[in-house]
Formats: sequence, structure tokens, C-alpha cells
Amino acid sequence: MIYYSYENFKNDARKLIDEVRSFDPEVIVAVARGGLTLAHAMAEGLGIRAVESIRTELYDNDQKRDNICIYGECDLLSHKRVLIVDDIADSGDTLDAIMKHLQGDNPHAEFKTATLFYKKTSIHQPDFTVNEALDWIDFFWDRDFK
Amino acid sequence: MIYYSYENFKNDARKLIDEVRSFDPEVIVAVARGGLTLAHAMAEGLGIRAVESIRTELYDNDQKRDNICIYGECDLLSHKRVLIVDDIADSGDTLDAIMKHLQGDNPHAEFKTATLFYKKTSIHQPDFTVNEALDWIDFFWDRDFK
Repeated sequence: MIYYSYENFKNDARKLIDEVRSFDPEVIVAVARGGLTLAHAMAEGLGIRAVESIRTELYDNDQKRDNICIYGECDLLSHKRVLIVDDIADSGDTLDAIMKHLQGDNPHAEFKTATLFYKKTSIHQPDFTVNEALDWIDFFWDRDFK
Repeated sequence: MIYYSYENFKNDARKLIDEVRSFDPEVIVAVARGGLTLAHAMAEGLGIRAVESIRTELYDNDQKRDNICIYGECDLLSHKRVLIVDDIADSGDTLDAIMKHLQGDNPHAEFKTATLFYKKTSIHQPDFTVNEALDWIDFFWDRDFK
């Protein structure tokens, strides 16, 4: 297990902000909870005031696979470039479901994803990311407030 | 101007989490952008998965006062106790407008507010807060990513 401190985060978030500038997003969608702190940092760094949030929950459905439910309406009609921000692309199920959901509702817009960490086995590979997750990541927001 | 570091934030957020436990909120509404990092920390500390976000913009309307527009739909129908989280109650206009808007849409629910800082002159005094703002606060999320 790796403790991911605020100092680690600060350095990585700055790298991600620099990477994302080429895309020039107009709005950020934070995936709650994990993406909230990163979305805040990136919105400040990029000078973006329009931040929305979305969240998912997993439910067993008595069959072999889980259902993902998505909560939170995002009003993206007036935006052309949307950045979806989460802490990690682990299995990738969350980002995959959110991308399909938002793209389906907003065929006019271009969506890209940014995360601090990714796994090679994720079914969704982020457009912008910093570190491969080779161990369990203990993010400071998971640890410092309990 | 006071630089408000992550270490300051960590200590204050923990105090706020302890204060808020008596209210036992079911959902957190983050006021974007300023309240996003605090909402994330509080949601982790309180074990709340339901986090939504809302934001406001000020517009001149050619008359003597500004209009506040509120963006972001919050689905609070299934919740009884809602905590609205922002960094600071400065003029208090934002929290006042958001409280009226959400309470109007959700008369069944009880709303309370939590901020890290407040001003004595704010028209909305938070239910839970930590520090009086006697100077301009330079929050780490405003400074560290630019």
C-alpha cells in the first residue's frame, strides 16, 4: 500500500493540468467522491468555473454481473469540450459507464478523461493520466479525515 | 493575506467533521468551486457516498444589484438531512441563494451549512464553521495549481 500525500498530489495535478491544456476543456465533470479534489485543483489551474459532478453506485442484480447506476444530472448542452476527472481508472467500469451515459445525452460534445492513476487492465484508458497503479493507493483524502 | 495550507485545512476539516456528526447528514451538496475539496474530505470523514454539487454565477443586470444564477440540479427527494459545504461565508450571498433555492425545491428536507471560514458581516451565518476570516484567505487550492 502506498500513501499518496498532498505533496505527491500537488506535483501530479500540475503535470495533469499541463497535459490537458491542449484539449482546452470548457467544463469539468468530477466523478464523486474520488475525483472531487482533483477536479477542484484542475479547475483552478485551468481557470474553469464550470464544474459539475456525477457519481455511480454498484448494485448486485441477482445475476452474475453488477449494475452501475449513475446519479447527478449534468447540463452540458452549451459546452463543446468536456473533461471527466477521477482519481483512478481501476477496473474502468465507472469511467466507461459515465462516458457512454454523457456521450449518449450529448452527441454534440467531445469528451476526454483525466485521472492521476491508471491500471493497464482498466477497460477504459484515460486520455490524460500520470502514474500506473502498481499497488493499492491510499489517497490522502481517504486517510487524513478518519 | 493569509496562506491557508493543506496542513491548516486538514486540522480544520477534522474539527468541522466532528461538529457536523450531531446533524448526521445523509447527503452533501458541494458549492463549486470553493467547496469541492472540503466536501470531499467531509464525505470521506463522515462516510457519506452521496455528494452532489451546485454552483452560482453573478451577473450584472443593468440595475443596481447583481443577479445570482444557480447551476446544477440536485436530486434530494430521498434525503431528509442535507449539508451544504463551502469554503467561506463571505458576503453570504451565495449560501443564502442556494439555501433558498434548495429549500424551496425540497420542503421535506432539513438543510444546514458548513464552512471553514465566516465573516461577521455575512448575511448567511453557517450552522457549522471554524474560523472568523479577518484577512483575505489564500486557500491552497487557489495558489498551488497556478
